[in-house]
Amino acid sequence: MEARHDHTHGADAADAVRAEIYGEDGVILASFLAHIGAAIADRDTLTLKRDVSVLHQSELGHLLEALLPEQRLALVELMGSDFDFSALTEVDEAIRLDIVDNLPNAQIAQAVQELDSDDAVYILEDLDAEDQDEILAQLPFTERIRLRRSLDYPEESAGRRMQTEFVAVPPFWTIGQTIDYLRDDKDLPDRFSQVFVIDPSFKLLGAVDLDQILRTKRAIKIEEVMHETRHAIPATMDQEEAAREFEQYDLLSAAVVDENERLVGVLTIDDVVDVIQQEAEEDLLRMGGVGDEELSDTVAATSRSRVPWLLVNLGTAFISASVISQFGATIEEMVALAALMPIVASLGGNAGTQTMTVTVRALATRDLDIYNAGRVIRREVMVGLLNGAVIATILGLVAGLWFHNPDLGFVIAAAMVLNMLAAALGGILIPLLLDKFGADPAISSSIFTTMITDVIGFLAFLSLATWWLHLGAAAG
Amino acid sequence: MEARHDHTHGADAADAVRAEIYGEDGVILASFLAHIGAAIADRDTLTLKRDVSVLHQSELGHLLEALLPEQRLALVELMGSDFDFSALTEVDEAIRLDIVDNLPNAQIAQAVQELDSDDAVYILEDLDAEDQDEILAQLPFTERIRLRRSLDYPEESAGRRMQTEFVAVPPFWTIGQTIDYLRDDKDLPDRFSQVFVIDPSFKLLGAVDLDQILRTKRAIKIEEVMHETRHAIPATMDQEEAAREFEQYDLLSAAVVDENERLVGVLTIDDVVDVIQQEAEEDLLRMGGVGDEELSDTVAATSRSRVPWLLVNLGTAFISASVISQFGATIEEMVALAALMPIVASLGGNAGTQTMTVTVRALATRDLDIYNAGRVIRREVMVGLLNGAVIATILGLVAGLWFHNPDLGFVIAAAMVLNMLAAALGGILIPLLLDKFGADPAISSSIFTTMITDVIGFLAFLSLATWWLHLGAAAG
Repeated sequence: MEARHDHTHGADAADAVRAEIYGEDGVILASFLAHIGAAIADRDTLTLKRDVSVLHQSELGHLLEALLPEQRLALVELMGSDFDFSALTEVDEAIRLDIVDNLPNAQIAQAVQELDSDDAVYILEDLDAEDQDEILAQLPFTERIRLRRSLDYPEESAGRRMQTEFVAVPPFWTIGQTIDYLRDDKDLPDRFSQVFVIDPSFKLLGAVDLDQILRTKRAIKIEEVMHETRHAIPATMDQEEAAREFEQYDLLSAAVVDENERLVGVLTIDDVVDVIQQEAEEDLLRMGGVGDEELSDTVAATSRSRVPWLLVNLGTAFISASVISQFGATIEEMVALAALMPIVASLGGNAGTQTMTVTVRALATRDLDIYNAGRVIRREVMVGLLNGAVIATILGLVAGLWFHNPDLGFVIAAAMVLNMLAAALGGILIPLLLDKFGADPAISSSIFTTMITDVIGFLAFLSLATWWLHLGAAAG
Repeated sequence: MEARHDHTHGADAADAVRAEIYGEDGVILASFLAHIGAAIADRDTLTLKRDVSVLHQSELGHLLEALLPEQRLALVELMGSDFDFSALTEVDEAIRLDIVDNLPNAQIAQAVQELDSDDAVYILEDLDAEDQDEILAQLPFTERIRLRRSLDYPEESAGRRMQTEFVAVPPFWTIGQTIDYLRDDKDLPDRFSQVFVIDPSFKLLGAVDLDQILRTKRAIKIEEVMHETRHAIPATMDQEEAAREFEQYDLLSAAVVDENERLVGVLTIDDVVDVIQQEAEEDLLRMGGVGDEELSDTVAATSRSRVPWLLVNLGTAFISASVISQFGATIEEMVALAALMPIVASLGGNAGTQTMTVTVRALATRDLDIYNAGRVIRREVMVGLLNGAVIATILGLVAGLWFHNPDLGFVIAAAMVLNMLAAALGGILIPLLLDKFGADPAISSSIFTTMITDVIGFLAFLSLATWWLHLGAAAG
């Protein structure tokens, strides 16, 4: 396989330097940044090669993010072949594209050959097809075929994230033969935690963990100690599903197989950790009404990604407004209602968001299923009624005292209980229904939940108030 | 070390069964659940031992969660020593406590001895001190000392999550000696991915990855191939910080050391994956206004954890209401304002939530720091103005047409732009300030951000409207 930077040693040497890179708070020190900035300005390649090439790829990534855009490019150019391109997998997409787009394709082709295949794919996949082809054309045949195959798998699939370098042996080898092979072969992947067992057509037969090899006598055959690869991952499997397998079965690495059950690569836990982070982040951002945003996105890109959600919200806000406008006469009669009505809507919205957040998360982690849905719905309704009673009591007392009108207190308290019930039902049923119909509950639940609590909040409060005012008028 | 269930083989055999456990959607099949339920009802221990002991601990965890509370206890009792207690680390805390509290301490002591130390600590740490002491007293001396030490470390520290079983050798051993030792020692931990190197006082000198041992000649000394353990984790380090080290440096396992740099345990990536999940989940739940909730919590516990946030929200809602009540005369004069004012507040709230979500997440992942804060603040302000212009234009047009009043359209549009600007500033500055003063921005940012957008929204719209009405009155 390919020659590569030795990250292990790089990171070792980095230990001495590291204390000088990060401050107490884990942020890159201003002094280190100034030092590197000065070396870039002076085009002092010696200093840069000495102080930057010892950095771990993630540290170099942090450094790139902290530098100014023009400094980043200058750094990459000044370091030449000493620049560790795997650092580009650690930075925001916008920064990665900015660097890669400004480098000649020949230099990227050179750099890509020194990377693990998963890192190479990570960098190549964001480029347009033309640049991809030009870069791939400059690679040796086997490299090209391998990267092409990874890139041909769908986005966010296991095939995109896998490493195509792995160790595989036939089942009839002994442990001794295997160890001797590992000692002699100079083309081993940088890091590996299991040895795969394959037949002559590369069909996957099993795997042996390294600790198993080490605790077994030399004469024993591989097939006697190998375990079936119970968790072989199809290359087309979505990375999120693959991550779930890793989590559930505490895997360190898993074989990736093509549609003919042939071994094509290995997925490792460090890539999966990134996927887990990403997926959790995605849910959080979606619930906040933002899409795949990064901090380095431009104003235009950020605005474009956020406006659609605001437009939907504008639509639902008009629905609420039209509900209120039906009660113009009542509000004119008693203007205190205008001041109090947002309280009912706001608290309902927050209670609904609480239930919805728990539901969306439980769906994502598969903690919520048909076996407990009924029980959870009952619980949410009970909690809604209980919290509704607490909040309604306080709200009713304060509103009644504020406007010297106990009846108004009763009206708002009753509306509050109704809206808390609506919030509980909406907060759990909306995500459940969206999930059932194949929509992502993280994206759209909060629009619908708040729409319901707004509409029910205004409607309940204003119609109860109207009824009570007329009752008063009729009695009077 | 201790005798244990062989999980590898258990999981292997489980492969055949697994297809029958989970349906297409990853949820436990009703048929499997009915089968186990019937066996429990019939007290058919033979069937249970055959079909349940092949399950992976996570599968057994899912099964427990799907069973009724009384079935769970019956299952544990019927399976006796064949029940894999590590499954208890995979279920909700409420379920774990329910099972453990209902078992005799002697049985728990028996079970704990068969677990990895990290799983044992996970189960013991939730018990009250009295039960802990009683269980620990029934364990052999070394076990007891080890678990006691782990439990003495603070909650959520690396010391609590570490495994105290590890492989350590002296630096002067050769690779050959090390392999022979691994082949002969029957007391090895179940799984390990590196061998630690220590001096006679257990002081950590370094580590060797297993793949490194396998590719090195027998005659070479350990000290020649070991690398310094650059990422040794102090046992008192917070688990979240330890997880960040694993993520940044792609570690599979790391040595845990005490205050004298002596090796006390090993932290492995599978435990760290759980921590990463938990931390991401915590942020999501906190932003949704819920604390450490679990689906199996009771109504009372859930209500108790959610009411405080609703009470704070009630307080801020009264502030908004008091702002509105200042403009009673204006609203009486033009009741359309009452219908339109929630639109300005609601859209500001959503825009503020968008900015705040991005900011809170970026702070959690340390993507936002002093080097880009200025740029990000500028970007958010620009996005706020741009999106404000888009939304204000549409809102102004629709409101003007709806109430046949173009001036009203201008007033609401101007108020909308002002509130979007307030939303952008609030959404980024509030989490930044909370973070700077050591508060968790995930918990309190959304209260303050929505308070600002509500108050500014109502204030801007109603005061502009008042000014414009008076202008009209003065002109007329």
